[in-house]
Amino acid sequence: SFKLSWRCKGENSDQHKHDIVYFERGNITTAERSSKQISLKWESQPQTVLIFTKPNSSSVRILCAEMVRWLREQRKVNIYVEPRVKAELLTESSDFNYVHTWKDDNEILRLHTKVDIVVTLGGDGTVLWAASLFKGPVPPIVPFSLGSLGFMTPFHSEHYRDCLDSVLKGPISITLRHRLQCHIIRDAAKNEYEVDEPILVLNEVTIDRGISSYLTNLECYCDNSFVTCVQGDGLILSTTSGSTAYSLAAGGSMVHPQVPGILFTPICPHSLSFRPLILPEHVTVRVQVPFNSRSPAWVSFDGKDRKQLAAGDALVCSMATWPVPTACQVDSTDDFLRSIHDGLHWNLRKTQSFDGPRDS
Amino acid sequence: SFKLSWRCKGENSDQHKHDIVYFERGNITTAERSSKQISLKWESQPQTVLIFTKPNSSSVRILCAEMVRWLREQRKVNIYVEPRVKAELLTESSDFNYVHTWKDDNEILRLHTKVDIVVTLGGDGTVLWAASLFKGPVPPIVPFSLGSLGFMTPFHSEHYRDCLDSVLKGPISITLRHRLQCHIIRDAAKNEYEVDEPILVLNEVTIDRGISSYLTNLECYCDNSFVTCVQGDGLILSTTSGSTAYSLAAGGSMVHPQVPGILFTPICPHSLSFRPLILPEHVTVRVQVPFNSRSPAWVSFDGKDRKQLAAGDALVCSMATWPVPTACQVDSTDDFLRSIHDGLHWNLRKTQSFDGPRDS
Amino acid sequence: SFKLSWRCKGENSDQHKHDIVYFERGNITTAERSSKQISLKWESQPQTVLIFTKPNSSSVRILCAEMVRWLREQRKVNIYVEPRVKAELLTESSDFNYVHTWKDDNEILRLHTKVDIVVTLGGDGTVLWAASLFKGPVPPIVPFSLGSLGFMTPFHSEHYRDCLDSVLKGPISITLRHRLQCHIIRDAAKNEYEVDEPILVLNEVTIDRGISSYLTNLECYCDNSFVTCVQGDGLILSTTSGSTAYSLAAGGSMVHPQVPGILFTPICPHSLSFRPLILPEHVTVRVQVPFNSRSPAWVSFDGKDRKQLAAGDALVCSMATWPVPTACQVDSTDDFLRSIHDGLHWNLRKTQSFDGPRDS
Amino acid sequence: SFKLSWRCKGENSDQHKHDIVYFERGNITTAERSSKQISLKWESQPQTVLIFTKPNSSSVRILCAEMVRWLREQRKVNIYVEPRVKAELLTESSDFNYVHTWKDDNEILRLHTKVDIVVTLGGDGTVLWAASLFKGPVPPIVPFSLGSLGFMTPFHSEHYRDCLDSVLKGPISITLRHRLQCHIIRDAAKNEYEVDEPILVLNEVTIDRGISSYLTNLECYCDNSFVTCVQGDGLILSTTSGSTAYSLAAGGSMVHPQVPGILFTPICPHSLSFRPLILPEHVTVRVQVPFNSRSPAWVSFDGKDRKQLAAGDALVCSMATWPVPTACQVDSTDDFLRSIHDGLHWNLRKTQSFDGPRDS
Repeated sequence: SFKLSWRCKGENSDQHKHDIVYFERGNITTAERSSKQISLKWESQPQTVLIFTKPNSSSVRILCAEMVRWLREQRKVNIYVEPRVKAELLTESSDFNYVHTWKDDNEILRLHTKVDIVVTLGGDGTVLWAASLFKGPVPPIVPFSLGSLGFMTPFHSEHYRDCLDSVLKGPISITLRHRLQCHIIRDAAKNEYEVDEPILVLNEVTIDRGISSYLTNLECYCDNSFVTCVQGDGLILSTTSGSTAYSLAAGGSMVHPQVPGILFTPICPHSLSFRPLILPEHVTVRVQVPFNSRSPAWVSFDGKDRKQLAAGDALVCSMATWPVPTACQVDSTDDFLRSIHDGLHWNLRKTQSFDGPRDS
Repeated sequence: SFKLSWRCKGENSDQHKHDIVYFERGNITTAERSSKQISLKWESQPQTVLIFTKPNSSSVRILCAEMVRWLREQRKVNIYVEPRVKAELLTESSDFNYVHTWKDDNEILRLHTKVDIVVTLGGDGTVLWAASLFKGPVPPIVPFSLGSLGFMTPFHSEHYRDCLDSVLKGPISITLRHRLQCHIIRDAAKNEYEVDEPILVLNEVTIDRGISSYLTNLECYCDNSFVTCVQGDGLILSTTSGSTAYSLAAGGSMVHPQVPGILFTPICPHSLSFRPLILPEHVTVRVQVPFNSRSPAWVSFDGKDRKQLAAGDALVCSMATWPVPTACQVDSTDDFLRSIHDGLHWNLRKTQSFDGPRDS
Repeated sequence: SFKLSWRCKGENSDQHKHDIVYFERGNITTAERSSKQISLKWESQPQTVLIFTKPNSSSVRILCAEMVRWLREQRKVNIYVEPRVKAELLTESSDFNYVHTWKDDNEILRLHTKVDIVVTLGGDGTVLWAASLFKGPVPPIVPFSLGSLGFMTPFHSEHYRDCLDSVLKGPISITLRHRLQCHIIRDAAKNEYEVDEPILVLNEVTIDRGISSYLTNLECYCDNSFVTCVQGDGLILSTTSGSTAYSLAAGGSMVHPQVPGILFTPICPHSLSFRPLILPEHVTVRVQVPFNSRSPAWVSFDGKDRKQLAAGDALVCSMATWPVPTACQVDSTDDFLRSIHDGLHWNLRKTQSFDGPRDS
Repeated sequence: SFKLSWRCKGENSDQHKHDIVYFERGNITTAERSSKQISLKWESQPQTVLIFTKPNSSSVRILCAEMVRWLREQRKVNIYVEPRVKAELLTESSDFNYVHTWKDDNEILRLHTKVDIVVTLGGDGTVLWAASLFKGPVPPIVPFSLGSLGFMTPFHSEHYRDCLDSVLKGPISITLRHRLQCHIIRDAAKNEYEVDEPILVLNEVTIDRGISSYLTNLECYCDNSFVTCVQGDGLILSTTSGSTAYSLAAGGSMVHPQVPGILFTPICPHSLSFRPLILPEHVTVRVQVPFNSRSPAWVSFDGKDRKQLAAGDALVCSMATWPVPTACQVDSTDDFLRSIHDGLHWNLRKTQSFDGPRDS
């Protein structure tokens, strides 16, 4: 059990401050519309840790076994791992029989009721994978990197003991990473209601032309307003966490993960005047493949699970109810700036003794 | 006196819904973090209208006189205008003696307590001007355009009677446009505290090199984290309302005015890897001219009031408390999309009977 | 038989002026390094016209029949068409028996020795198709558009009589459009020599990741210098004619077709600091899929003929010997500027009565 | 006295190969339209070296004195320096009396007849300065950098002995860098003819709005065709050497210096659909400030010599007759690629063990 609070430079109030607009006496003001640094404080001691690992890496495997032993023996917490990882651990030693896992999808659906903390060992891909297993509420994630740090992995694995001690004790700074909830609607003119399970993405959902030699021709709507028709290689709908991933490659801006918004970024648009757009998080975006489209489009979710969108199908996206809380090394802003400097060499320049123009 | 409410597609609740994060039973969810469509409902009948006009335009002058007469005679409201406009009206007829105006800056500071509605006749520049006179709370603004519509002027002046009747009756949809509050700190190492009056901008504050042949060298901080050093022609700090103005020309994304954020957009950066950045609205940005800078920088506010920043001076910006509420023609999203289509030809393409590749 | 000449503003010399560098008396000067407006003058009367048409269009079919009759009956020239078109004409009337066509690829290889003028009826795609049939020398092409004009189709089909009379008489202004000659080298470490037939492209050759979820990892060389490794969606090598096609969508500059150069434009590069590059036309570019690549790449030529490049394969490109001469409506510059204004709405703006900042 | 030749991969011919278009037997081909790697071979031993230095640097001063002594005493060549540098040398020792300099502008105009080689000690700015003194023919320039290498300075100063020995012996690879020749025409409607001395730029000429709050409104023509009207912060007309300078910061492509072209790059254009343009080198570009312009524009040449362009004035630019030959470290392509990697971190990425999407 835990409690969240947030504050702004200098403040230290425990009080909830989340009003968006005040309008006493007819004057309009606003306060604290977007979230400040959020702090998580345990109300009861965390007792169970779930560890996800990047597969096919022997260094990750060794680290995982070590961390499991330390958490169990020194910190007395219960451990969950994926079935594959449990099998790997048992190959090493039958001592690991105390490690929990699950057998089927139903158990996965109840994981969030059993687990207090999720640890990932790998890179951003392992965080994406871990998040994808939680369709509903997500426990706080502590992401470790084994090599250079990623956009969502601010902790060096060599310091895992100090880091986990600090997390177990609390309080910890977290970034709430929003997700997009996506529905594919087949033959959208006939089926107005969403029937399939929604698919949640933490980075982005992409609609592209695949290997077709025809440009996409995607009709896009925001709530009930027509936005535009995307002709080109495709369209990316990205969270702000995903703003440093595919959306960036396609020319989108970098957006701090705490800004509440949805990035609407075209891929190689066949128009000089297309510029990326950022929409508020409360809207619903609908992308429709026209009924008379000459070729299908393809949709992929966080870079995988490609599905075809036939003529007449639609994709409908809105912000998901359940965000992904990830632990910060320093705080949301500092971690974000560190990641774009280190990970992207943002605004890296040669320092030069500028030998400027000389006036005659 | 009025009341604001907001809702999302389908909802129609009058209830305040502005919680940012729920965390009952240890699960983290979020709801309605950014503002939905905001609706303004008069609690008492509006009685006073202040009209601002674009100068040096005879068509604006004629329209203003006509509107003043109609509002006064047919709708029985009190009228305020700028001193220049009152003088113009009196030149036309001494009948206009009933029109109010002000004499000095002190009276301007109290205008918001006397005025229920602000009307602007002109373009976006007239809205910027009107907003700049309200350093504190701003009454709802109804912006009319005399020619083609602008980003903040969704009403055609030819329909002013219907439009104003609808506004006087209410309820009206409004967009809350956030402003940046800027302080110049001279010799920043010595003077930690802000002493000058803050300057409020509705579009952007720009720091540039003016006509210097040396690149700027601006050290930028977000709260207490170092962001980067901007070497180039300069830097734009823009509101989301300003995202379609200078920031767009410099390569920034277009951002819906309801997204709470601050755009950090470099001007001609001397680095291949600079990309515009969007920061949350709750941060404080500090731009420092280094103590050893070879040349000063220049700061301008919504494109005017140029001031020099000497070596050692700093500019400090944060979101202002008092936003600028502007009336919508349809709603915030529809008006925004209409403005980028009409005003910027966003993603305008020639419709072509595509004569694609032919397979052999 | 014809003769080409070129001149610059004001000059009218028939003389060859194509020296690149003079170095008399140790001084270095240059003259006329790139081609001026090229003019084609017939030395003997053109006698044979080859017509290509866009398929599946009844208006094109009607126009083609009419043009064939007029050229044959009124202008007494011999006509060639594709086998498909001859069949279509014969369906309409057995009179069209006088129209020539070909039976097999060997005859296509000799077409340029029989044909004086090529006419295309369709859009840019029909010009690409026509050009692709001439692997060696290409006769002058006169491209007609049936609807709005394209980048390579400056002639409106409704004026075909006047236009063709003017072409048959000469002189005509032409644009020499360069092509890239591409070789795929399988298992490049073993096979140093190009064995396959080269493939010629008039717009661009593209190497992309297809539907793979792994980024491309293309090692690029210019002559013997390492250029860079392209990680992203792929790479476009474009002619200057192709600069207004896919390269533009990927962010490349627009280049006048007479500038001799090869555009090296990445597609959604996974690096902030990638910027399109323009190389001189005399270089050889080699794009290599690394031997340890986790996934193949795909190459396509003017948007078609997709082929897989496996790990170890390479694509080698250089400027082809035989350019594609296309007739101009006015001249190369005027036609190019017209096409980017009309076809791309280049720098189209709303003309606005700018209501700029007002000083207080 | 020297001789230039050029060749392409594998070739080694001394023969002039500069024909642009062949058209034997009615077939159109092209050969070697742009210059290959150019090689300079001395026909008589070079006897005089002119040294330019970056001012206000004691390390440059020390190196200059050392180089002068070595060239004079060990290599027996005559030395020229600027008057300022001669004064500095004489402060150090009256031995330096043998060093030549000049007294007035007339002597500068004849410098190219006396000097065989120009050496620069400094950065790109020193090369720009040296080139600006030669309005006509320019001797080969050997540019040394004292710190990190620049775009035009491929030689490390610590190896100056080996490098200069190699240059004095020849042959050397050179890059011919083209310059733009600019005329300001006052009150252009009345004065059709260029009267002032042309100003030569090696990087770019810029027309901007200075500190005016009004956007520029520049009418641009290419030969006699209207190009566009530039509304924004301004316009850059750049050589291909200048493509890595200001034009790059404004979003232009990087262009190999041997591509013959003129870059037309807008600065913060007030239009979504403006994209940089590259024109052939044989055109004349005319930029006109409209007669009814509300504010003047400002023109600057290689970043300096700012001049006002009043309403009605025009700037006319075309490629200059006399290029600037600079010595290469390896060859034009290798030096160019090295400079964009080292100087701009072009396409620099973090090498990462990519932890990609995992399929479920």
